[in-house]
Amino acid sequence: MSRITARRKITRLTVGSRTLAGEDLLAVEEPLEIRVNGRRLAVTMRTPGNDIDLAAGFLVSEGVITTGDGFNTARYCAGAVDGVNTYNVLDVTLGPGVAPPAPSLERSLLTTSSCGLCGKESIDAVRTKSAFVIADDPVRVDAESLTTFPEQLRAGQNVFEKTGGIHAAGLFDAATGDLLVLREDVGRHNAVDKVIGWAVKENRLPLTGTVLMVSSRASFELTQKALMAGIPVLAAVSAPSSLAAEFAAEVGMTLVGFLRGDSMVIYAGGDRIVDRADAASAAVM
Amino acid sequence: MSRITARRKITRLTVGSRTLAGEDLLAVEEPLEIRVNGRRLAVTMRTPGNDIDLAAGFLVSEGVITTGDGFNTARYCAGAVDGVNTYNVLDVTLGPGVAPPAPSLERSLLTTSSCGLCGKESIDAVRTKSAFVIADDPVRVDAESLTTFPEQLRAGQNVFEKTGGIHAAGLFDAATGDLLVLREDVGRHNAVDKVIGWAVKENRLPLTGTVLMVSSRASFELTQKALMAGIPVLAAVSAPSSLAAEFAAEVGMTLVGFLRGDSMVIYAGGDRIVDRADAASAAVM
Repeated sequence: MSRITARRKITRLTVGSRTLAGEDLLAVEEPLEIRVNGRRLAVTMRTPGNDIDLAAGFLVSEGVITTGDGFNTARYCAGAVDGVNTYNVLDVTLGPGVAPPAPSLERSLLTTSSCGLCGKESIDAVRTKSAFVIADDPVRVDAESLTTFPEQLRAGQNVFEKTGGIHAAGLFDAATGDLLVLREDVGRHNAVDKVIGWAVKENRLPLTGTVLMVSSRASFELTQKALMAGIPVLAAVSAPSSLAAEFAAEVGMTLVGFLRGDSMVIYAGGDRIVDRADAASAAVM
Repeated sequence: MSRITARRKITRLTVGSRTLAGEDLLAVEEPLEIRVNGRRLAVTMRTPGNDIDLAAGFLVSEGVITTGDGFNTARYCAGAVDGVNTYNVLDVTLGPGVAPPAPSLERSLLTTSSCGLCGKESIDAVRTKSAFVIADDPVRVDAESLTTFPEQLRAGQNVFEKTGGIHAAGLFDAATGDLLVLREDVGRHNAVDKVIGWAVKENRLPLTGTVLMVSSRASFELTQKALMAGIPVLAAVSAPSSLAAEFAAEVGMTLVGFLRGDSMVIYAGGDRIVDRADAASAAVM
């Protein structure tokens, strides 16, 4: 298996017809810790591959280097998780006379000290931090109701209508299919924070019985935010990353992607999505 | 003018036909500094509106609060830029007994100390940091050649083909239209860092005479990265944010959005985009 894509078991569901299990390829998302002259500079969630380019480019963006000479060596840290090198920690040394940058935790809430670093640790770090457990949430979502969410979201997007360039996040009541709140932002993480902030101010956490719908892809960061607010179901118009799917499976979150028209792909927690075809076949039996 | 959308003068160009000047509405992107109990917690680039929700949700995501009581008060800092409150600095106080978070600079490279904070300061901070000036780059890009870039990018995207969930960034030679390097990542900022990192390792900075093409929208962060690498032209499949357009205009970068089919919208630096219609009309005259 390549480290750039990951295979996962999924369920494809089209409303009213059958449910097919299969496999899907997801873009891999894993943390990369960039160390400069032995000190941690940043942790970014990235797709493995061209990590040295990523580190070098990050140093250009930070204003640390402008020439190839400024970037002296880069090698993966020799540490390992469960005896296997994660290739997720990169040690960079700068060329002579290049001043190292001030440490920055930009792009990550992760804190690690070990040499190995892997997606599983990222998941554990978030799970430990959350005050809520969502695996026990008995919520069920009607598949047909779920397929109306993207259109409800789009209909409520005033700013997208005008600009074509903004993300939306909406919180829905799973039982009624009603949109509870919708927020827009150029940053999808901000749109989600605005939704959750509305909810915490209303004293509604944990958000049991709700579905968070996003107009974008589903990254690890978005699943993390959903867990922190106790949201049991996350639905996205586009694809999830591998780590988002892994995270959802581990914490008992339902994760739906490619929610378009009358179909969807279920990456985790599919028992919460109820289709009328299931009811019909149950009645026949 | 609303603070959520901003009007900008643009040029619409369809290859071989005419160029119409007009106005377009962009989603506003501005920095928000969130302070907790008087200390800066984070600066995030966001669309103004529901800022208190954003701050409250951010605190949930950070694991600081889980109830409405935890979030005591929020008010905009009274400071001003040029005598006008920017409404970009928000002071939050936590409820009794809630432990404040450790300071984090997540999501931002900005450093400010004043009470006012505005997009212009963000632009100045980056401009000061960059070793390169791009305003003088005499590069010209043929409009028809430019319209082939999205397809070249898509054709090179191995991982997108398989997963449907990954961003791409490509660096093109403006004179020949050749794709120099393409990188994919779940994070669009990472895809751009990988491209720039490749270039700095090859000792090619500043990247005069090149076009950076991204499969996504164009945010302030991406224009910032382009300037740091000396890239004079940034083209995006989707919309830019207001601050990306403002930044491009201020530093002399050409910014193209909605590059689809044989048309595009030019937000800044349109004199670098040459259409055969211009040449024809020049020949007639």
